[in-house]
Amino acid sequence: MTNKEQLKGETKRKHFRVEPIGFIRSDLKRREGAPRQGREGAPNALIEVLPSYRKALRRMQAGDEIIVISWLHRARRNVMEVHPRGDASRPLTGVFSTRSPDRPNPLGLHRVKVLKTDRGKLHVGPIEAIDGTPVIDIKPVINSDDW
Amino acid sequence: MTNKEQLKGETKRKHFRVEPIGFIRSDLKRREGAPRQGREGAPNALIEVLPSYRKALRRMQAGDEIIVISWLHRARRNVMEVHPRGDASRPLTGVFSTRSPDRPNPLGLHRVKVLKTDRGKLHVGPIEAIDGTPVIDIKPVINSDDW
Repeated sequence: MTNKEQLKGETKRKHFRVEPIGFIRSDLKRREGAPRQGREGAPNALIEVLPSYRKALRRMQAGDEIIVISWLHRARRNVMEVHPRGDASRPLTGVFSTRSPDRPNPLGLHRVKVLKTDRGKLHVGPIEAIDGTPVIDIKPVINSDDW
Repeated sequence: MTNKEQLKGETKRKHFRVEPIGFIRSDLKRREGAPRQGREGAPNALIEVLPSYRKALRRMQAGDEIIVISWLHRARRNVMEVHPRGDASRPLTGVFSTRSPDRPNPLGLHRVKVLKTDRGKLHVGPIEAIDGTPVIDIKPVINSDDW
């Protein structure tokens, strides 16, 4: 099978299905008011994990550094290029070279600390995601300079 | 609206649709032979970005540090707890506290360096994803100790 045939076969599988495993509860209610990165004055927040996924939190504890992957449900998926941070004086840049929420698959990456765990509730912070944002995965940080 | 009603409303939206933006081309052909992390002897590889997403690569260049988010298409999505690294002597741990590919939404995170760009082809490495793995997002590393 040539590389071209292989690519053709794979592109038949047009999409995959992502299920929310929980939701962000935050005082940040609107995208317009949200900081662009957690370090830019974002608040702490709660991740409410849905009952069917709570087993996957086993052994997570306060002090853990984690990466939360969210689904930025308000983003525009047909945007391929942006002026970084909406600043027209910056050159047009492909979204894969920016952290713009607008991108083909609107995934958000948030490195946060676990402050407290309470059954299906994780208190984490700081995090710039707005209230109601679906969470689709959580992973531990392995090396501090790596993740 | 109470928190409970809000959660109920949101959980009506049962899933989201992720589109592959490209595919990994690698000499790693089977999951069994794959290193668990890029630093554990993984090879360099190619990311072939599909034509409709190539604009999103604008201004990406050799030397850039990026985070590749993959869809681990061979993973089992109903696994909530594992013995880390398949080592039965390690305590059972929720998948959200491990980097197991088996998890509700099988996303892979790979921090790699761009070695060369050639239209829709990114040479990157090292990366532990197997040949044919769909890529769903690419983001720049912002702070070396952050991402």
